[in-house]
Amino acid sequence: MTSRILIRGGTVVSATGRTEADVLIDGETIAAVLAPGQAHALGIAGGEAGDPETSAETRVIDATGKYVVPGGVDVHTHMELPFGGTAASDTFETGTIAAAWGGVTTIVDFAVQRTGENVQDGLAEWHAKADGNCAIDYGFHQIIGGVDEDALKAMTYLVDNEGVTSFKLFMAYPGVFYADDGQILRAMQNAGESGAVMMMHAENGIAIDVLVAQSLARGDTDPRFHSLTRPAELEGEATNRAIQLAKVAGNVPLYIVHLSASEALEEVAEARHRGQNVFAETCPQYLYLTLEDNLAQPGFEGAKWVCSTPLRTKHAHHQADLWKGLRTNELAVVSTDHCPFCMKDQKELGLGNFAAIPNGIGGVEHRMELLYQGVVNGELSLERWVETCCTTPARMFGLAPRKGTIAPGSDADVLIWDPDGHTSIGVDKKHHMNMDHSAYEGFEIDGKVDTVLSRGTVVVENDTFVGRKGHGQYLKRGLSQYLT
Amino acid sequence: MTSRILIRGGTVVSATGRTEADVLIDGETIAAVLAPGQAHALGIAGGEAGDPETSAETRVIDATGKYVVPGGVDVHTHMELPFGGTAASDTFETGTIAAAWGGVTTIVDFAVQRTGENVQDGLAEWHAKADGNCAIDYGFHQIIGGVDEDALKAMTYLVDNEGVTSFKLFMAYPGVFYADDGQILRAMQNAGESGAVMMMHAENGIAIDVLVAQSLARGDTDPRFHSLTRPAELEGEATNRAIQLAKVAGNVPLYIVHLSASEALEEVAEARHRGQNVFAETCPQYLYLTLEDNLAQPGFEGAKWVCSTPLRTKHAHHQADLWKGLRTNELAVVSTDHCPFCMKDQKELGLGNFAAIPNGIGGVEHRMELLYQGVVNGELSLERWVETCCTTPARMFGLAPRKGTIAPGSDADVLIWDPDGHTSIGVDKKHHMNMDHSAYEGFEIDGKVDTVLSRGTVVVENDTFVGRKGHGQYLKRGLSQYLT
Amino acid sequence: MTSRILIRGGTVVSATGRTEADVLIDGETIAAVLAPGQAHALGIAGGEAGDPETSAETRVIDATGKYVVPGGVDVHTHMELPFGGTAASDTFETGTIAAAWGGVTTIVDFAVQRTGENVQDGLAEWHAKADGNCAIDYGFHQIIGGVDEDALKAMTYLVDNEGVTSFKLFMAYPGVFYADDGQILRAMQNAGESGAVMMMHAENGIAIDVLVAQSLARGDTDPRFHSLTRPAELEGEATNRAIQLAKVAGNVPLYIVHLSASEALEEVAEARHRGQNVFAETCPQYLYLTLEDNLAQPGFEGAKWVCSTPLRTKHAHHQADLWKGLRTNELAVVSTDHCPFCMKDQKELGLGNFAAIPNGIGGVEHRMELLYQGVVNGELSLERWVETCCTTPARMFGLAPRKGTIAPGSDADVLIWDPDGHTSIGVDKKHHMNMDHSAYEGFEIDGKVDTVLSRGTVVVENDTFVGRKGHGQYLKRGLSQYLT
Amino acid sequence: MTSRILIRGGTVVSATGRTEADVLIDGETIAAVLAPGQAHALGIAGGEAGDPETSAETRVIDATGKYVVPGGVDVHTHMELPFGGTAASDTFETGTIAAAWGGVTTIVDFAVQRTGENVQDGLAEWHAKADGNCAIDYGFHQIIGGVDEDALKAMTYLVDNEGVTSFKLFMAYPGVFYADDGQILRAMQNAGESGAVMMMHAENGIAIDVLVAQSLARGDTDPRFHSLTRPAELEGEATNRAIQLAKVAGNVPLYIVHLSASEALEEVAEARHRGQNVFAETCPQYLYLTLEDNLAQPGFEGAKWVCSTPLRTKHAHHQADLWKGLRTNELAVVSTDHCPFCMKDQKELGLGNFAAIPNGIGGVEHRMELLYQGVVNGELSLERWVETCCTTPARMFGLAPRKGTIAPGSDADVLIWDPDGHTSIGVDKKHHMNMDHSAYEGFEIDGKVDTVLSRGTVVVENDTFVGRKGHGQYLKRGLSQYLT
Repeated sequence: MTSRILIRGGTVVSATGRTEADVLIDGETIAAVLAPGQAHALGIAGGEAGDPETSAETRVIDATGKYVVPGGVDVHTHMELPFGGTAASDTFETGTIAAAWGGVTTIVDFAVQRTGENVQDGLAEWHAKADGNCAIDYGFHQIIGGVDEDALKAMTYLVDNEGVTSFKLFMAYPGVFYADDGQILRAMQNAGESGAVMMMHAENGIAIDVLVAQSLARGDTDPRFHSLTRPAELEGEATNRAIQLAKVAGNVPLYIVHLSASEALEEVAEARHRGQNVFAETCPQYLYLTLEDNLAQPGFEGAKWVCSTPLRTKHAHHQADLWKGLRTNELAVVSTDHCPFCMKDQKELGLGNFAAIPNGIGGVEHRMELLYQGVVNGELSLERWVETCCTTPARMFGLAPRKGTIAPGSDADVLIWDPDGHTSIGVDKKHHMNMDHSAYEGFEIDGKVDTVLSRGTVVVENDTFVGRKGHGQYLKRGLSQYLT
Repeated sequence: MTSRILIRGGTVVSATGRTEADVLIDGETIAAVLAPGQAHALGIAGGEAGDPETSAETRVIDATGKYVVPGGVDVHTHMELPFGGTAASDTFETGTIAAAWGGVTTIVDFAVQRTGENVQDGLAEWHAKADGNCAIDYGFHQIIGGVDEDALKAMTYLVDNEGVTSFKLFMAYPGVFYADDGQILRAMQNAGESGAVMMMHAENGIAIDVLVAQSLARGDTDPRFHSLTRPAELEGEATNRAIQLAKVAGNVPLYIVHLSASEALEEVAEARHRGQNVFAETCPQYLYLTLEDNLAQPGFEGAKWVCSTPLRTKHAHHQADLWKGLRTNELAVVSTDHCPFCMKDQKELGLGNFAAIPNGIGGVEHRMELLYQGVVNGELSLERWVETCCTTPARMFGLAPRKGTIAPGSDADVLIWDPDGHTSIGVDKKHHMNMDHSAYEGFEIDGKVDTVLSRGTVVVENDTFVGRKGHGQYLKRGLSQYLT
Repeated sequence: MTSRILIRGGTVVSATGRTEADVLIDGETIAAVLAPGQAHALGIAGGEAGDPETSAETRVIDATGKYVVPGGVDVHTHMELPFGGTAASDTFETGTIAAAWGGVTTIVDFAVQRTGENVQDGLAEWHAKADGNCAIDYGFHQIIGGVDEDALKAMTYLVDNEGVTSFKLFMAYPGVFYADDGQILRAMQNAGESGAVMMMHAENGIAIDVLVAQSLARGDTDPRFHSLTRPAELEGEATNRAIQLAKVAGNVPLYIVHLSASEALEEVAEARHRGQNVFAETCPQYLYLTLEDNLAQPGFEGAKWVCSTPLRTKHAHHQADLWKGLRTNELAVVSTDHCPFCMKDQKELGLGNFAAIPNGIGGVEHRMELLYQGVVNGELSLERWVETCCTTPARMFGLAPRKGTIAPGSDADVLIWDPDGHTSIGVDKKHHMNMDHSAYEGFEIDGKVDTVLSRGTVVVENDTFVGRKGHGQYLKRGLSQYLT
Repeated sequence: MTSRILIRGGTVVSATGRTEADVLIDGETIAAVLAPGQAHALGIAGGEAGDPETSAETRVIDATGKYVVPGGVDVHTHMELPFGGTAASDTFETGTIAAAWGGVTTIVDFAVQRTGENVQDGLAEWHAKADGNCAIDYGFHQIIGGVDEDALKAMTYLVDNEGVTSFKLFMAYPGVFYADDGQILRAMQNAGESGAVMMMHAENGIAIDVLVAQSLARGDTDPRFHSLTRPAELEGEATNRAIQLAKVAGNVPLYIVHLSASEALEEVAEARHRGQNVFAETCPQYLYLTLEDNLAQPGFEGAKWVCSTPLRTKHAHHQADLWKGLRTNELAVVSTDHCPFCMKDQKELGLGNFAAIPNGIGGVEHRMELLYQGVVNGELSLERWVETCCTTPARMFGLAPRKGTIAPGSDADVLIWDPDGHTSIGVDKKHHMNMDHSAYEGFEIDGKVDTVLSRGTVVVENDTFVGRKGHGQYLKRGLSQYLT
């Protein structure tokens, strides 16, 4: 049995540059990165073009003409998330297989404490769901839906013992996840002590709920009113509020999830300009989809794109601003907020009442593809593609240098990307998530996932998933390395 | 003779992380970066602690407990620059040796076209000065002191043929280097076509010259008036003007040199926030030295610190802002603007008239040291130290991936830094620049340059310069990779 | 009995200029403003210096060398306000007499609906307190402490029928006055329909209450912790939140009360710059008093200055910013937030627990004096003194042109101000509020209230109050004229 | 002969409110402003509706249903200005008569010193042109086209002796009016000493001239290229430059003329927010006309609208921003920059070369009308109409309280405006300027100039000019009262 893999002839792309190099994998980790010719010089079988591609010692993967990049790190997924009387349609098995199909080798999912529940029970429940079922490695953030003394103690415990070093609070969804500003402040103070990163769903849910009730009362029940009752100002407002609370708590690191609006980006950018430790992610849906083109499609079609924060109008400049933010690092990360629901039986719960539509878009499979198209379109550099999708998420959430980089000693999580390939996205095309539709139906990508390795094991090649559930391991995360 | 070097046991630090790894050098370039143990596994002599440190094949350098980082890239030096009737006191020989002492393996110096002179003559003159005299590799920017049809043609020629892909203009020094706004616009348009980066000395020299004349007429002739007659507002103003002209010219990449004032940083940050391709460097003198503590020293002492842009008052928040800018990438690069003059016979030309003091501070030797102290002080991360001093300058000015990174195939320019060492800066301590004083006299650094390699050759080790003049080669630079 | 008064020889100062003119009063209103000499020409007795000063027809008041300005309009007072188990120490009688002493001829006090109470009951209660007791005219804003369907209906009713056209909500004081963001949004929507102005106490009281509890738990119980537990960021945050909610509600006019912090001013200024209808008042205490100099006085002395929003640190630039804001109209109004409590038996309720100190500073008597000193100190113009203290408050709250201006037909509310006089403030000096201390003890004013007329009746002259309780009438206010 | 006029029954509108009042004029000045009924009570003939309208003593003008406002003050006109080989087509006679037709009773025109000429000669020349020819009162600013020792001395002399207290410099038009930044700084320092206001034509003319030459060289010679070669960024840039120079000169009051671009407004607003004494005017052309609709009309038609600063594109938000700026006082003044040229023989000088088209639009007649339409359209309040067109310009330039206000003692310059009237603008309609076209052809105004008085003399009534050339007097202006 071969214990080594040599990825030969490709262009290794990092967050800061690209270089012609071979990548030698030994077992689960990267053994070396070698200049062209050196594999041969060092007597590594397959080290030269003429060498046999597979030997007893070393399997050779030819990456000539391809990009060799770190496996994708998606730090915002919701597998099997119960929501509104149903649950996200991807299990950890189906979801992580779809992720692998998309070149993603690590996810960080959200364990959930709902208001009134116990934090550690929530974490245990998520471990139970994921354990033995994942095709790629995974970690957990913890949602804190009820900040009290017990929850605060649990937060510290999770940081110190469980490898859970980031916590998400919600400024929306009262009665389910909502934390008031006093609770937020206390949780932030706690994070400041433990070194955790505080994540925030930043929308003013109290005001939004008034707008939602008024909209429904007026008979404005179609999916598009989901966006119209969540105005961008209320995302900007909540973002600023979270930023100020983090400052009062002692400049605690704050990470804004699924940022969708220019107004919120302005607040993040201003805080960063002042020197505050504020970070944000956006998601492909906010970069490509809009209220008018998607959410407002006739009939109930728009339900496919009901997610929160919502898709924004194209008659402003949200998307141009978000791309700009990715270029300038005002936005540090791209995640998916993968939270898939089928139209049948799931999204349909909200027929006649947009507020009852389960919130979420599935996308874990397509993030690397969609963002690469941004590179093709001139929106960001190849290096920023790697940085925002792999390197920074790993560093931000305490997974570096194990994940997010092609470096000796790092896990051999590798995506070989073919810039000359092509990908057609759609339920009848490339589509492996457990959904009866695709949010990105009809998208064409000028590039292709060629081969994916997870901890030294090839999991996708030749348009075939060759991995297995259970391969994926739980990642005890350390503290954020992003600021150290 | 050994052709290989193995740097063993260190922590390789890049712009985005650190990893335990060995670095194998073969000839002038890096052959491989290897996980611990892999050198041994691959049969590389010296690959394990027990191995002999030097063999016929491989010399071993033990970097245990040390940081292995790319050799420093200082993109702003002025060796032998004629100025005000004298010339900068470091030759390319003395200056590049001092640079090597400071862990710097690449400089980009400024060839000069003065108003009324020919561009290519200026470049030829600089080649003549540097050729055969440099201890480390070097490139040239070109100063354009007289924008006209000939100069514009020469700019294009230099980009296409001479590896000179960046041009500096001056908004100060009328009659010597000054370009008016129309000339700046034309040069920027030209850069937009050729792909060059436009560099700018951004001070409103026309207004400054009025303030200088008024100050001298009042009898305010001491060195401190050098700063008082160059108010921060006039650096901010010129910075904005350059930014707007670059926008009108078609969003041409603009790089502000030696940024010293909060006002200028605000303009850069705002332009970047708008999405414009604007970058800036600052220098150690602006991060550590001030009008009050240095320039205003009694008698003529302050002359040591006469440089332009000038040192700023400590009664504002310039330094805190600059450190913040380095953390947030509002400032992309740290350079030195190395332009040394001795007090004797040189700075003394301005006795009784600050305006006649040659402008410049020598610092090429101390940038890596001074900025590392910023890491110790918690001002920036180890990764940003590498990024701002090595990686970004190389990428910004078309030297990557050959320079600025520890990667297979890159030049084996390596600084081994000892975080447990100590450096005392001062003319009787560590001081190898050709100056009769040090701008940083008495500075103590909690770390130390241990070993320096230039293109695979050890040039500094055991507190000894073991390189030689003439080792350094001219670098034909490509276009900036920073935005691609 | 004379029915006319001629104020002769003074300089009439308006918001936009000053002019030498006589003011003729006929009954309760201003009959004419006349150029010098015209009174005589028109045969008005006393119209010329030689004329007898009082005749059967016309009483003459000589204002030579004095400023003739509109009587002060203080739109933020709390007479007899129940608070924390006690009540503000000035009744409508004592408070309005003190106001008259200070050149104020109109107050707008706050009728109160507490959480759980009925709006119209609150208004009736305030009418009962004031009716027949006021020495000067008065109106009411309505505090809405419990936004629900009944309260919203009541708001509309008050606008349409009761001359109450402005409503204050609180983002602080949960359980007493606090409105959540949904309630705020609904109240703002209501104001948008009725034309009312929404007033906001903008502090994040939910977060503040956490800080207060933590401070007390730590044993930090002295008065100064009142300010330290109400950080400026939480005033800025709430101010922005109110602004965004007002925008979502349809750009409803929003008036921020007692703005004290630079952070809040920034938000107001930015909203105004965007074109939003946002206004703000500040109070003399924020212009002159500080945490360190006042609130942090040894022992329990600081309790005198416990008010919310709190006094701010002098180690920032709050006061300079507020004065600047007054000059530039970023701050439109100066009010007092007059809410007096004696030290004995009242402030002392908070001995050992700053949170139990009744919140409030008494100042209704001194606003015109303190702000005039700002004119003397070069902080604002004489015209802005009149505008911010008289004209704008009247226009903002639907009292113009009856109040706030020296114009024919307007109420003859006049303050004759002596710029050559002097006023010493202090309990043993000028002090007519029902308080056992003065927040401005020891302040010296380079000017003096000379004579005060309320609706044509002299109420203060010769350092004597010559008015009477019951003279003051309730003012049914119209809609704000500030934007029309 | 009657010596008195009583304007009876109107609504007097000031910058801060409106009131029903009668205005009594005695000779050249306002004698009194009276509440309704008071004229009668004081025995003034015609003081009541039943009274005869004209008596031996008092002529009565019935203003029932009309607005009585101060005569307009236009602080930016160029009568008879030589420009590009021709001269502005309105003489002081024709221009001031047209102004009167438009309700304007004061102009401040620009005396000119061109580069190389003598300041006082320029002033004398302008006196010679105007003396005895004006139908309304007039003052002079002085253009300084050549800042040197003589000019600086002259500036001081003009402030102290000639009633010229404001000076305009140009950042454009090299060789004609252009001042470099050193000259600007020196002139500003001089103004700081004398108390004068510095006015600035803020466009980067050096860069613009490059763009113009390039445009012509490309064959882009049509009128629309006049705007395309003067990009908004270069107005913003110059505005910021002027602001920073004014700050360096000691916070000297700075007044930006004919502001047309959002970019420039941002700079003014930011400077004001910082507390700097920066003011700006805009003109009706920038509020109503655009590049696309006017300047880019087919053939040579666009030449009518060639002015500098130029008309801006409607595909940005310049006009919305300017109206907003007027509402918020970011823009303090509306002037016309009246500089008329006929198409025939004048504008036609630029056939085939937009750069040779005389720069200027005539509008002195229509400012009050066009801005009143802004009131009708809801863009600004009636009070701001008066403030921006009458009161502030008078205060800004040392004419208050003589001009710009309806107050006792002020000049009886009165515009009676009929809100129920209608005005059609156009060469065959209302058009009294000496121009063969109208920049506002076809504009319809929902209001009408009813009657105009200049220093107590009716000059326009019953759609007839009844004044005379020579009635207008030179106004020696004092220092700006705007900041005192």
